Amino acid sequence: MVRRGRRGPRVEVSTEKYRHLVNPFEPLRILSDDQVAHIHNTAVRYLADEGMRVLLPDARSILADSGATVDDEDVVRFDPDVVSAALGSAPSKFEFHAPNPARNVAIGGRNIAMVPVAGPPFVSDRLNGRRYGTLTDHENFVRLIQSFDVMAVTTPAIEPSDIPVNVRHLRSNFSTLLLSDKVPFIFARGSQRVRDGFDQIKIRLGIHTEEEFALKPRTWTNVNTNSPRQLDIPMAMGIIDFARAGQACIITPFTLAGAMAPVTLAGALVLQHMESIAGITLSQLVRPGAPVIYGSFTSNVDMKSGSPAFGTPEAVKGAIASGQLARHIDIPWRSSGSSTSNTVDAQGGYETMMNMFGAIQGGANWIMHSAGWQEGGLTASYEKFILDIEMCQMFAETFSPLEVNDDELATDAISAAGPGGHFFGLDHTLERYETAFYDPIVFSRANFEQWTQDGSQDAAERATKIWQQTLADFEPPPVDAAVVAEMTSFVDRRIAEGGAAPD
Amino acid sequence: MVRRGRRGPRVEVSTEKYRHLVNPFEPLRILSDDQVAHIHNTAVRYLADEGMRVLLPDARSILADSGATVDDEDVVRFDPDVVSAALGSAPSKFEFHAPNPARNVAIGGRNIAMVPVAGPPFVSDRLNGRRYGTLTDHENFVRLIQSFDVMAVTTPAIEPSDIPVNVRHLRSNFSTLLLSDKVPFIFARGSQRVRDGFDQIKIRLGIHTEEEFALKPRTWTNVNTNSPRQLDIPMAMGIIDFARAGQACIITPFTLAGAMAPVTLAGALVLQHMESIAGITLSQLVRPGAPVIYGSFTSNVDMKSGSPAFGTPEAVKGAIASGQLARHIDIPWRSSGSSTSNTVDAQGGYETMMNMFGAIQGGANWIMHSAGWQEGGLTASYEKFILDIEMCQMFAETFSPLEVNDDELATDAISAAGPGGHFFGLDHTLERYETAFYDPIVFSRANFEQWTQDGSQDAAERATKIWQQTLADFEPPPVDAAVVAEMTSFVDRRIAEGGAAPD
Repeated sequence: MVRRGRRGPRVEVSTEKYRHLVNPFEPLRILSDDQVAHIHNTAVRYLADEGMRVLLPDARSILADSGATVDDEDVVRFDPDVVSAALGSAPSKFEFHAPNPARNVAIGGRNIAMVPVAGPPFVSDRLNGRRYGTLTDHENFVRLIQSFDVMAVTTPAIEPSDIPVNVRHLRSNFSTLLLSDKVPFIFARGSQRVRDGFDQIKIRLGIHTEEEFALKPRTWTNVNTNSPRQLDIPMAMGIIDFARAGQACIITPFTLAGAMAPVTLAGALVLQHMESIAGITLSQLVRPGAPVIYGSFTSNVDMKSGSPAFGTPEAVKGAIASGQLARHIDIPWRSSGSSTSNTVDAQGGYETMMNMFGAIQGGANWIMHSAGWQEGGLTASYEKFILDIEMCQMFAETFSPLEVNDDELATDAISAAGPGGHFFGLDHTLERYETAFYDPIVFSRANFEQWTQDGSQDAAERATKIWQQTLADFEPPPVDAAVVAEMTSFVDRRIAEGGAAPD
Repeated sequence: MVRRGRRGPRVEVSTEKYRHLVNPFEPLRILSDDQVAHIHNTAVRYLADEGMRVLLPDARSILADSGATVDDEDVVRFDPDVVSAALGSAPSKFEFHAPNPARNVAIGGRNIAMVPVAGPPFVSDRLNGRRYGTLTDHENFVRLIQSFDVMAVTTPAIEPSDIPVNVRHLRSNFSTLLLSDKVPFIFARGSQRVRDGFDQIKIRLGIHTEEEFALKPRTWTNVNTNSPRQLDIPMAMGIIDFARAGQACIITPFTLAGAMAPVTLAGALVLQHMESIAGITLSQLVRPGAPVIYGSFTSNVDMKSGSPAFGTPEAVKGAIASGQLARHIDIPWRSSGSSTSNTVDAQGGYETMMNMFGAIQGGANWIMHSAGWQEGGLTASYEKFILDIEMCQMFAETFSPLEVNDDELATDAISAAGPGGHFFGLDHTLERYETAFYDPIVFSRANFEQWTQDGSQDAAERATKIWQQTLADFEPPPVDAAVVAEMTSFVDRRIAEGGAAPD
């Protein structure tokens, strides 16, 4: 967290207008209301008739207590009435409370949160290539995330593989909570780690009791079911622990059509829907009203290689349908930006935009991996992060209203310019010029000659300078020294105790 | 037109499912109905009160005969009732008839035609760099356009600067009409050139009279007004000549906010709307019912350099609003894909997608420059053409319905896979695997190791091979030898006559 010297002109990063985004566009529909209801009903009926395997005994007990049946193979069959009641108790809107109240995030309705890359084992940048991520990389990504207001919250951007697994969560939470004042993420990797994370957040927020902590959503996690039809132990623990603590859980089946899900999109959606509502039901049985987000990540395998593909047309269609399914049960919806490309190239741009198109026009409230995600999620790219920030900011600009009034209609300016004239020097232009249009951070609008003179750099090359400069300019948010001290001693103590054993 | 030898596996290019595209999504709205009406009424009133300068005497006469006033500075003030009648007589739908009837293109309603790059002076590819375009480049682009069904029609993809101006239209029309059986374009660069183009098309179609030619729309042009508020001589001639011949004219004000249009988006839209409806009015006075398309190209200048910027958030908003304005007057709408980037990089991908997002979700019927447009329209890129084809095909895939029935819901397959299982080997998967998902032509889905082994090529590098292979595989459409002979002798005669003098 050492402050680095400035190397160039400050990057214009903090633009509060990109906080608290609201998507004004009516969500797209790809399914009729009847089709939506049919997929929903098929999923509910299947959960009742065939059920889902739940590997955590505690979770099976909670479900059995609700009236579900559990067979010898740990398959739980859900009572449709219980599912229905659970979907009814899950909130349709809630608000995350951040360490800095200006960073609170409203979830649901037309609110839309762009969320950075989360979890890749590798990092990549143009100077150092692709390698396993370290705590330094994680910290750098938190600095970048904190710097750009269009990123609504922080994530575990990179897996810091240089830190032993038993203390990794302690170290990365510590960095995240001191380098950012945005809503933090906690991995659902077992109850001890979750408890440690909650404790670290409490210290950061000056909260001393579990009751006070549970009053508001202050942190979030993402639980991926083991599609098809299985909920593993740490994931079920995560749902239970987060619900008990009144914290937000996104339940995201990873339904890759043709591999872990049916090859047909409707089939993948049925599977996604049943798994997500099974997880939501578990959370609501633990604590009715616990904040949850309906997660979708339906994409498909590549037909030639069988490997996962992202930014596909099938993913777009799946996203739009998923938004309809989430609205059918009136629960906030999480989608994703993502790409398959192995490098920072045009393919990555098209693919990410394709997925963002499905997410944004589908009406997503929470768009994971909207900046920095590369190589099917295996790599967090510094350069792609910057390019995706540009994209997210451009989308945010499209959400602002198109004003229609006499000043904006500008007929006086049209008369002043005259036939065949121009608008460059008019007062109407000069008064508005500096703020009229989006001003890019990395996209070049130089003409070919100027661009050639400047070294013919493509967007990825320019992005290197932007992330370097942003890191050089970074200033961490103010945190009370006593809080830092308490956080430090907590981590020291827990490391001395051995951290958390593998689950 | 020599057939080249094959160099590699044939590129899967011709997929008839990408012909006759229909966009199933409800168009986005950024303006209220009142705002749309207010912009329209402001434009109509302004045309009546302040008018538009028209440089062609014939055009002024036609307008004056309709009741418009013409002042000493050739400014024409339009009667609102005449404008209203003209907008009423312009067709809301029509169909282009191509040399090959399977390539006919329906315009209007939810029909959507993706149209390739048109008109850049430069071409670029990774092997030969950026240079002035030649007839060979033009022919190569026609071959590429003909090869991919997702391109609805042909364009004057590149300006063939190696051909003298007086005969350039003859030579490039000749190539276009023999290398493709799609609907051809004719430049509105003066009446002689238009007449030559119509004559060449008549020979290709076996049509012997102007009356028969005029029965159906068989060719199209694009007229850019000289924003602000001026219609120049060849453009006005184009509107008149195309209307007289019953051929389609797109009237596209090039309203760049902050330069040739007000710095405010509503102002740029007022200007765009008045210029477009002025052109449409002229066409309908010449021939009521002449096919026209409402063109929009509202984008903005870069705030730092004053140069044009494409793929901007302002362009997206302008596109969505333009779609609403076009639907308000019930005339088919043309929008554009385009980008500012000077090279085939991520920026170009994001920008093109951003514009396509505005065009497609705005409900465009005709998307110009949707493949190959680079560097603000100054360059046609061979590699970007291929990447954009991938994009267009992916969008086309999103238009196909998401089927919901027992087979597609696949609950039997979900049961067969079992909890924690997979779907790879199931009959349900194997029966559908080959056609279930979009199969990319240039996007790589190899994992990082495989991709590295294959040479770590980015998308632009791979695209080089695809256009080369597509050209190597190209087979021109069948054309009767007598027709070729007649076309040849027409061109020879017209060249001997000196072609067309500059207008």
